[in-house]
Amino acid sequence: MSVTDAIEEYMRDCMCDSAHDTQHVARVLHYAMDIAGHEQGVDPAVLRAACLLHDIGRAEQYADPRVDHAACGAEKARRWLEGNGWGADFAEAVAECIRTHRFRSGCPPRGIEAKILFDADKLDVCGAMGIARTLLYKAHLGLPLYSLDENGAVLDGRLDPEDTFLREYRFKLEKLYDRFYTRRGEELAQGRRAAAWNFYQALLCEARECHSMSDEGA
Amino acid sequence: MSVTDAIEEYMRDCMCDSAHDTQHVARVLHYAMDIAGHEQGVDPAVLRAACLLHDIGRAEQYADPRVDHAACGAEKARRWLEGNGWGADFAEAVAECIRTHRFRSGCPPRGIEAKILFDADKLDVCGAMGIARTLLYKAHLGLPLYSLDENGAVLDGRLDPEDTFLREYRFKLEKLYDRFYTRRGEELAQGRRAAAWNFYQALLCEARECHSMSDEGA
Repeated sequence: MSVTDAIEEYMRDCMCDSAHDTQHVARVLHYAMDIAGHEQGVDPAVLRAACLLHDIGRAEQYADPRVDHAACGAEKARRWLEGNGWGADFAEAVAECIRTHRFRSGCPPRGIEAKILFDADKLDVCGAMGIARTLLYKAHLGLPLYSLDENGAVLDGRLDPEDTFLREYRFKLEKLYDRFYTRRGEELAQGRRAAAWNFYQALLCEARECHSMSDEGA
Repeated sequence: MSVTDAIEEYMRDCMCDSAHDTQHVARVLHYAMDIAGHEQGVDPAVLRAACLLHDIGRAEQYADPRVDHAACGAEKARRWLEGNGWGADFAEAVAECIRTHRFRSGCPPRGIEAKILFDADKLDVCGAMGIARTLLYKAHLGLPLYSLDENGAVLDGRLDPEDTFLREYRFKLEKLYDRFYTRRGEELAQGRRAAAWNFYQALLCEARECHSMSDEGA
């Protein structure tokens, strides 16, 4: 078994939900290699290992929401790499990328491999794929699509009291497009923006049509 | 408590997932009342109770996939209505609507209330809402978005070996629009068709871009 296969196999053992599955990892790896082709001085082995292992801390975060899957996954990756024949410097470089890939974190990526992983992972929350994965994730957490106000009208996400899908769109998905570190990442993201916005608008419009009559009561 | 409130409260106790929640029931009720306004001879009390109770058999189907939630929900509704002061004829009329509301069933709706419930429920699988609910449901079952062929290319749903989201779109969501019993139901469905198709196309296109390089291996 090649060293890359061993990393892949460990990654497969750690994946735990439809929104963060091996297909997500494959897409992140594709985006990362595309972006790397537009940047200088990238270590492809570090970047590849970081892409493969970036979400291996998800199960721990599901089990305890106080756990940060980025910090936990970084430490798991570092230990596993060191324990399976990779050097400490390589393991730490990979762990550093994983530690800083989370969107909601006060810990921004610094090196070029970390910035590329961040952008590649964010690209998979853009466009139709981002909509699909966010819905898969919301279902996993048992959260509703939208909230109603005190008059029974559908809120558009900006003031939702619950952690709804529309709220996630307005507070995260919509804001992603201006948060890329690489020019190529931003370019790819912009090409997906309209598909996500169109879906949000269509869903909100359909939901509002259904909650426009005040006499239904259900 | 009014009799409608009692039915609603029983319904709320039976709901169990994000794709089939009280918001889904509210939308189905809205669509049903809209369609009823375009039809003759509808019993609004039977229709309303059937809408509120149509998915109360879902938990039993999740627990055992051999259970048909329509047949199970019909019997639960009949027993609950009879046990809570409604007459046997009313309970049986409601149960008959629920029994025949399932899309994948050899048991088509006959009376006008049953046809309206069928159409109202199918409207909530059309458009952006249908996409969103199908993704929530797929996540609940832990199923992937798409399948890859032996060369690692993304299949478009028509030949997927797995029960993917793209397969569900091609085999159910896309075919719904010609299966309505009422003219008003079909009219409302057609207005939502483009949003669903556009999303399917965008998702397939984004996925294919990510799996177009054969050297990634993940």
